[in-house]
Amino acid sequence: MNRNQLGALLHPSGIAVIGASDDPNKIGGRPIAYLKKYGYRGKIYPVNPKYAEVQQLKCYPSITDVPAEIDLAIIAIPGAHVLDTLHECGRKKVKSVIIFSSGFAELGEEGRSRQREIGKIAEMYGMRIVGPNCQGVANFSIGSLATFSTTFAEGQLEVGPTAIISQSGAVSAMLYNIRKKYGRGSKYWIGTGNEADVNVAELLDCIVDDPDVRVLQLYMEDVKNAGALIAAAGKARERNKPILALKSGRTAEGSQAAQSHTGAMASEDIVFDAVFDNYGIVRLDSVVELAVFSQLFELPNRPKGNRVAVITNSGGLGVMLIDHCKEMGLELARLSEETRQRLAGVLPAFASVRNPVDVATHFLNDRELLAKLLPILTADAGVDIVVIGLGVVGRGYDVPAMIEHIVQYQGNNDAVVAFLGVGCQDDVIASFSRSGVPAFDDPVLCVKAISKYVAYHLDRREAQEEKAATHGATVKPALPKTAGFLSEYEGKRLLKEWGMPVTREMLCADEEEAVRAAATIGYPVVMKISSPYVQHKTDIGGVELNIRDEPQAREAYRRLMENGDRHVGKDNIDGVLVQEMITDRGFEISLGVKRDPAFGPVVMVASGGIYIEVLKDFRLLVPPVTKAKARKAVESLIMAPLLKGARGKKAFDVDALCDAIVSFASLVTQTDAIEEADLNPVIVREQGKGVAVVDCVLKLTSEGA
Amino acid sequence: MNRNQLGALLHPSGIAVIGASDDPNKIGGRPIAYLKKYGYRGKIYPVNPKYAEVQQLKCYPSITDVPAEIDLAIIAIPGAHVLDTLHECGRKKVKSVIIFSSGFAELGEEGRSRQREIGKIAEMYGMRIVGPNCQGVANFSIGSLATFSTTFAEGQLEVGPTAIISQSGAVSAMLYNIRKKYGRGSKYWIGTGNEADVNVAELLDCIVDDPDVRVLQLYMEDVKNAGALIAAAGKARERNKPILALKSGRTAEGSQAAQSHTGAMASEDIVFDAVFDNYGIVRLDSVVELAVFSQLFELPNRPKGNRVAVITNSGGLGVMLIDHCKEMGLELARLSEETRQRLAGVLPAFASVRNPVDVATHFLNDRELLAKLLPILTADAGVDIVVIGLGVVGRGYDVPAMIEHIVQYQGNNDAVVAFLGVGCQDDVIASFSRSGVPAFDDPVLCVKAISKYVAYHLDRREAQEEKAATHGATVKPALPKTAGFLSEYEGKRLLKEWGMPVTREMLCADEEEAVRAAATIGYPVVMKISSPYVQHKTDIGGVELNIRDEPQAREAYRRLMENGDRHVGKDNIDGVLVQEMITDRGFEISLGVKRDPAFGPVVMVASGGIYIEVLKDFRLLVPPVTKAKARKAVESLIMAPLLKGARGKKAFDVDALCDAIVSFASLVTQTDAIEEADLNPVIVREQGKGVAVVDCVLKLTSEGA
Repeated sequence: MNRNQLGALLHPSGIAVIGASDDPNKIGGRPIAYLKKYGYRGKIYPVNPKYAEVQQLKCYPSITDVPAEIDLAIIAIPGAHVLDTLHECGRKKVKSVIIFSSGFAELGEEGRSRQREIGKIAEMYGMRIVGPNCQGVANFSIGSLATFSTTFAEGQLEVGPTAIISQSGAVSAMLYNIRKKYGRGSKYWIGTGNEADVNVAELLDCIVDDPDVRVLQLYMEDVKNAGALIAAAGKARERNKPILALKSGRTAEGSQAAQSHTGAMASEDIVFDAVFDNYGIVRLDSVVELAVFSQLFELPNRPKGNRVAVITNSGGLGVMLIDHCKEMGLELARLSEETRQRLAGVLPAFASVRNPVDVATHFLNDRELLAKLLPILTADAGVDIVVIGLGVVGRGYDVPAMIEHIVQYQGNNDAVVAFLGVGCQDDVIASFSRSGVPAFDDPVLCVKAISKYVAYHLDRREAQEEKAATHGATVKPALPKTAGFLSEYEGKRLLKEWGMPVTREMLCADEEEAVRAAATIGYPVVMKISSPYVQHKTDIGGVELNIRDEPQAREAYRRLMENGDRHVGKDNIDGVLVQEMITDRGFEISLGVKRDPAFGPVVMVASGGIYIEVLKDFRLLVPPVTKAKARKAVESLIMAPLLKGARGKKAFDVDALCDAIVSFASLVTQTDAIEEADLNPVIVREQGKGVAVVDCVLKLTSEGA
Repeated sequence: MNRNQLGALLHPSGIAVIGASDDPNKIGGRPIAYLKKYGYRGKIYPVNPKYAEVQQLKCYPSITDVPAEIDLAIIAIPGAHVLDTLHECGRKKVKSVIIFSSGFAELGEEGRSRQREIGKIAEMYGMRIVGPNCQGVANFSIGSLATFSTTFAEGQLEVGPTAIISQSGAVSAMLYNIRKKYGRGSKYWIGTGNEADVNVAELLDCIVDDPDVRVLQLYMEDVKNAGALIAAAGKARERNKPILALKSGRTAEGSQAAQSHTGAMASEDIVFDAVFDNYGIVRLDSVVELAVFSQLFELPNRPKGNRVAVITNSGGLGVMLIDHCKEMGLELARLSEETRQRLAGVLPAFASVRNPVDVATHFLNDRELLAKLLPILTADAGVDIVVIGLGVVGRGYDVPAMIEHIVQYQGNNDAVVAFLGVGCQDDVIASFSRSGVPAFDDPVLCVKAISKYVAYHLDRREAQEEKAATHGATVKPALPKTAGFLSEYEGKRLLKEWGMPVTREMLCADEEEAVRAAATIGYPVVMKISSPYVQHKTDIGGVELNIRDEPQAREAYRRLMENGDRHVGKDNIDGVLVQEMITDRGFEISLGVKRDPAFGPVVMVASGGIYIEVLKDFRLLVPPVTKAKARKAVESLIMAPLLKGARGKKAFDVDALCDAIVSFASLVTQTDAIEEADLNPVIVREQGKGVAVVDCVLKLTSEGA
């Protein structure tokens, strides 16, 4: 990626508009009108062979006639002429291009092929190209509105500390407009369309460096550059610049629609969950959440915890807020005795000095009420967040005074104050919001925003505290030389070298050896056929369980060899694996690998047995997998309560399980050698007794070999 | 309940205001000001010994001085004087009273005791009393605003086809104000406060009969009259008048706050889920949902199914809508080939004629677009609902034309059309909504509203189709005469009489009888101590499993008798129960009873074993329990997929299980004789093999005895 070229896109000192129109309502006319309207100070070069002047500006017959270097060219001509024009731009050494024109990947195979051409042209000339089929790129701080979005046809620009980076210009426009109603603005406004070259992740990675940007608001249907996304997320977390993302195409049907909308690639949605979770990207569930939750994330305040105190004028609203808080993982702050006494000192007798603090009508009597309540509540070490949840704020409420008290207060304190107004007079919410107080009109959105905000900060603190645990061994163990499936024995040797506990076992070439091995390991034992050609051993009668003595062992050996010979031929059998049988109580886990087209190998941790089938009880882990992340994944399994020792039994050895997961993850993600893996079952024994991989199927990639 | 008296409350022909004030901003002044402002045509009688005239009306020194019958008296005086004044009202034969005054149950025990007095006074005089601590009752259609809510201090009344019935006047005000922003109104507006006498359920039961009311909007923290709620719900479903309810205090913490807010009773929240579900009350999750979802329910249209077609101007919004639909149980309509061709005939080439139908910018070019699209989409038999989901509707969109097309269309068709506008110009949503088109500004709320609306209608149809199945036997089997615990044997006899399959078993008085019984039943058998004094048989060594032959049977018998004697004494043992042992594959269910303080006995169906503990995998069923309801409960268990025969195995006998549940429910709910019940395990065998209650603990109520 060439940063300078994205720089020319985001901070252009001169913009050409190819297909310029004198009509400010035409696609080729709008960007010129916007650039003029919003005070762009750079040069504007209309290009159109039909005109000498466009919107009072000199017009050039072609891009090559423009007598200057061009940072950014907008292409607003029919799709059929786009490729030729791009070559012209390339020859003119235009640094970046935005293609408004449609008629590419969104139209099927022929269009996809022409779109691939665009990518090649970008590479050929070292020219960065946004689009095709996009609404453009705007940097409000310099008035460079290289867009035809009708959103900017009227009104004032709302400039602010976020960047809206979206694959859909229409969604960017929705986000911008919703924010505008809250009196909030952005610095960047971007719709990348089909992403033949420049994509959302790359722009994110660039814009996260901009000191003016506090919060990044992404809309995406896929990711074209997973590396850039992850790099950007790392920087963003380091610098406390929250990335809020709406990734749509969550459902199979939505994902299909996304493919026909922007030609989205088919990463599984659950992988995004894991990636976002791992890199601290805040995933939101709707366009409204993406627009309004940002208010909280724009605050410099860092909540210490998740304990909420509520000030309300309605007992009913108080009850609702508590329900919403509890349901979204927030706790109700317990006010100290001292706090309650101090509250009683400033509130009338009819008010409640518990949490929620119900002041009833007292805002009507005391305009300084918030100035009194906020210091008391936030002085309580048990309070992390204050929600002022009021119904029907209108006549009699001194809104400017309330805002002043919150703003003053929030500026001098790490406690977070949010305003919720339900059924209020028309401009109440916007008044708060415009003044920097996060404000909401729906209790659910308010509480969910707080819950996401708190989770972001707690996660960020955790991430700072833990260093990504890398595998203990500085020299990586060697991988087997061959690609393809390993026998269980080979697989387990590999796992063991990477630090995973496996069952004690010996590979035996003949019956006598097997009998000696069984005696060494100690009865009861398990015996299994060993062959890289047999992945499903039980299907061919290749497993003998619970062998209790020598005669049984001899019998089992013969049966296994017979079955093996019948199915894969004697020559393809390595021998018989004699294995300890784990007879004590254990909990079954399975570990696997999922290979994502964008994000590469991802580790899957699942409850064993029927749970994974019926309950889909699994979690994904993306690298780097730390022990804390492993523990979080394990503890969020549906069956996790059983691991803690349900029914009064002893807990299972979760600690050893997490170590094993970290080891497995390092093998998977550090080597990229594992094409498929199914470690199943991994038996988690009682606390202190560790875990053991009992069976495994591993397939190596050719890269790994 | 006396209907006439609630009639006097809701349609008063004369209203006295005790504690009347000349100041229209005081609590005793506001109702008078509102009654005058909003054109109440009945008589207004201010009562206050201090004044001869109040707000230009003759004022009376006391209620007894008023020279007329009084339908409704408002009490707006300090709490300490309320009881005396109520007696005066009673002697004056006032038909109904609203007490604004606070200082009762919300203040603790002393207040609760005075509140109980209010209830007694109501009964003594046959006078209906709303409150105390309430904001009052308004019937907008006659301008009887017997309330002091500041909501009505300014602006016009918004009258419409819903009733807002709430325990919290502040919540009523929020609901009213949110609806007003959407240009929607109500007929009734009620805040019942502490509910010493009149409660939400009773008002609901009365108002559901009002032909002007299409939708009922409830806010409640508990229910004081479960019978009225259920009766009203039955009528409402019959007449297709949806009841939308927000019941807060869902979480333990919220419920606790509700108790201090309105002195709410502690019905478990999950019981409300079951009751609402069973009687077709639509439970909503937030005050905003309660306010805005009503728009859809006010339509006369009845959707045939859950298949949604989307018209959008943004591919991104289309993808989001599909995600939201799928996540909320709606299906994406598959457009027929004919529909697609017809769409292609009216849309430009750049539009997508699949679902979502993405018209991009074409609304700007074709003002008749909806008039063309709606008939095509709804002519498709695969489409039940059309969502018009548009981003950034503003300049260039002919909103009045769009509204006209939808309204015309919706009036002539059972298909439902909803409008979603994201980030639109300020008045766009309200324009649609005011004209009768359900309109939303948040995709999540829009889709959730549709999903609730569809579910309501499908459930209503189902309820109409099935007659509540009553127990087959017209003569109810006799119940045992004694209250208290039954032995397993007695319990199973009772269950069997009510039609439940139980294990084959014989109660044996001595060893020889036990040996003969075992032979008759066939080995292996189970033997258990039988005594009403032993509920947990395993704890005292009172169960012997897997008895394979006569010697084992004799040994087991002796051990059981010894253990029994040691723990409860020989005389308290009925004998030994010899029981078939179910050895084939089965799925464990448990059935139980939960007694709710408001709703009475409720049947609990749960997955057996660890599932109920770890997963809280249970459902509640309230009477009448039909087989369809039983099936729905069973199929919604988390473990239900296993019942269907996961892992390629044969399905279990769900049909027999549902029969057993219906039988059990009829015993529980028709007799009200079961105080406690734990049928555990109930083994569900393979398809065709039925179920068997293997063990049970039953405790009879004294009523049952």
